[in-house]
Amino acid sequence: MSQFFLSIGPRVHKSPFFDATVAAGVTHFSIYNHMFMPTYYGDPQAEYRRLTEGVAMWDVAAQRQVEITGIDATDLVDVLSARDVTGCRVGQAKYMPMCDHDGRLINDPLVLRVDADRWWISISDGDMLLWCRAVAFERGLEVSVEEPDVSPMAVQGPKAEDVVAALLGDWVRQIRFFEYRPAEIDGIPLWVGRAGWSKQGGFELYLLDHTRGTDLWELVASAGAPFGIGPGAPNYVERVEGALLSYRADTEWDTDPFEARLDRWLDIDRDTDFIGKAALQRKRAAGPRRRLTGLFVEGEPLAPNSHPWPIVIDGDQVGRVRAVAHSPRLRRNIALAMLRTGITTDTALEVETEFGDLRRAVVTDLPFIS
Amino acid sequence: MSQFFLSIGPRVHKSPFFDATVAAGVTHFSIYNHMFMPTYYGDPQAEYRRLTEGVAMWDVAAQRQVEITGIDATDLVDVLSARDVTGCRVGQAKYMPMCDHDGRLINDPLVLRVDADRWWISISDGDMLLWCRAVAFERGLEVSVEEPDVSPMAVQGPKAEDVVAALLGDWVRQIRFFEYRPAEIDGIPLWVGRAGWSKQGGFELYLLDHTRGTDLWELVASAGAPFGIGPGAPNYVERVEGALLSYRADTEWDTDPFEARLDRWLDIDRDTDFIGKAALQRKRAAGPRRRLTGLFVEGEPLAPNSHPWPIVIDGDQVGRVRAVAHSPRLRRNIALAMLRTGITTDTALEVETEFGDLRRAVVTDLPFIS
Repeated sequence: MSQFFLSIGPRVHKSPFFDATVAAGVTHFSIYNHMFMPTYYGDPQAEYRRLTEGVAMWDVAAQRQVEITGIDATDLVDVLSARDVTGCRVGQAKYMPMCDHDGRLINDPLVLRVDADRWWISISDGDMLLWCRAVAFERGLEVSVEEPDVSPMAVQGPKAEDVVAALLGDWVRQIRFFEYRPAEIDGIPLWVGRAGWSKQGGFELYLLDHTRGTDLWELVASAGAPFGIGPGAPNYVERVEGALLSYRADTEWDTDPFEARLDRWLDIDRDTDFIGKAALQRKRAAGPRRRLTGLFVEGEPLAPNSHPWPIVIDGDQVGRVRAVAHSPRLRRNIALAMLRTGITTDTALEVETEFGDLRRAVVTDLPFIS
Repeated sequence: MSQFFLSIGPRVHKSPFFDATVAAGVTHFSIYNHMFMPTYYGDPQAEYRRLTEGVAMWDVAAQRQVEITGIDATDLVDVLSARDVTGCRVGQAKYMPMCDHDGRLINDPLVLRVDADRWWISISDGDMLLWCRAVAFERGLEVSVEEPDVSPMAVQGPKAEDVVAALLGDWVRQIRFFEYRPAEIDGIPLWVGRAGWSKQGGFELYLLDHTRGTDLWELVASAGAPFGIGPGAPNYVERVEGALLSYRADTEWDTDPFEARLDRWLDIDRDTDFIGKAALQRKRAAGPRRRLTGLFVEGEPLAPNSHPWPIVIDGDQVGRVRAVAHSPRLRRNIALAMLRTGITTDTALEVETEFGDLRRAVVTDLPFIS
């Protein structure tokens, strides 16, 4: 793939950490939730190593929040979610697949209960603020649905806990997975939680004052210096190894949560008449005809794909490679594919790469590295 | 502003014209409606000149369509629109401001009546498919709401009509502004209409088969060669000169259509209880406290802004420059600003640029060039 420049203009928002990431040497961006989101700092191998062996700091402010507040807030969240998340304690978060009325997956946020009647939905790329507002207003619920001043930064990797403890105190070591606590440093209001979009462990710092982005970035960089912290971003290779779902990258436009392997995060028989309930019950009864599946792809190390690649058996298309990566730890090409169900590990598949060659591939279990 | 690379991966879709634009030398992209959208081809001055003096071809496939079909289709469109568009004849399009229940502007598409019960909403950047589906399903309307296989290309500039006539026949010269007709060339199904996001005149070709993008691009390039056609993109400078609204660039998160100067495209006293009606009636009665306003900014030619710039009077912020450009035709710096109302042409304003200087500015009428 050739390299292209990104146009930087006022239609897309800068993150509160934008200036700090530029100072830290960001080279590549994508756009996510109408914001510039750093993707690389010029050395993908070093960034992978920092994440898997040390500690990295990421600007993930593009993970915007939808704040739902009011006496009907919990009822609205219940209706919006394909999973029963209403049992969350204050400070607890849950992964929350969201579907439309036809049972299509439309987002896969983490939802945090900030207070009894106040929730933050930390969204993947998509205008869920519009979706949530439409449902709330059309139903006449007593809620407010807004985007709050909340901008996540992630600290990820085996040494992340040491860094966040050095920053905020040893008490953070007691925070359990998917739990968040209010915190403050240098007058900067935060929520801190054990979470993040990697399999390496770590924390998210929710910055609650967008004017303090550079200050927070520098404090984390200082606290992390003794541990060798450096900048990074949600890591393409590591997340394929761990089979962390990337909504839109791994999903077709009409993918349902069964196809996306989200079965264990669904509560579709609960009493609530949540959005998509009937469609999901029908889909479960019919069984998925395709499913996100792991592939080993033979041959020389592959560069990441810039678009989905066809998968064929004897010339018939049976699916698409959604994301391919060369795993440094497995020393193999691995891929997440949306593949017809019923294809077994002894079936010879062929992948049509964008580089003009045909690669043999076989099905394997997910995740590649747990 | 430094230059950054764009990450190209499967989370964002390639346009059907992507390969053709790469072959044509695209250098810069943005991301719009989850698609890569070309913004520059390496020579902004030449691209501006082609548009204002000759003819340019643009990949604007990122202008996705929301297709609404069914016996309740027209009722749904009526409810979604702050303007009465129900009188559209088949083949006629109208500019259609869309608001949420609080009267905030959430998109400003062109809507085309494709058939009696079939509409295409050609959207600005935003997930209006989700919004329209939420409203349709929550109201139990008998419609289908989907994204069809429609990818616009624009041919813009004073010689655009000659090019499209050379491509499709002289009959296209009879097409009136905002009218579309079905067409076909070389087996490629199209709709062709007189429209486009410039003030230079021109046509949009709606490609109805995404597999034929390169074919259509090459046919247009061939037909346009005698007229000096070349690649381009929605032009930042020309659209500021013409004060064509760029949703998100020119608007704050809670801008209403009065602030965005869309008064003449509103029908808020009609019988339909459309979304936002009560809020817009209240806003009209109160009068806007800020409004999109033209500014001349003094001094040396300015590069476009990468984020909004504060506007101050005696140190008090009275608004933000949303988009600034140096106009080659006016030989002045011009800007669209969201400015407190009541500021007159004799008021001395100061603009805090991102380049570290303070520039004097004065209010002027819009558009800068009509």
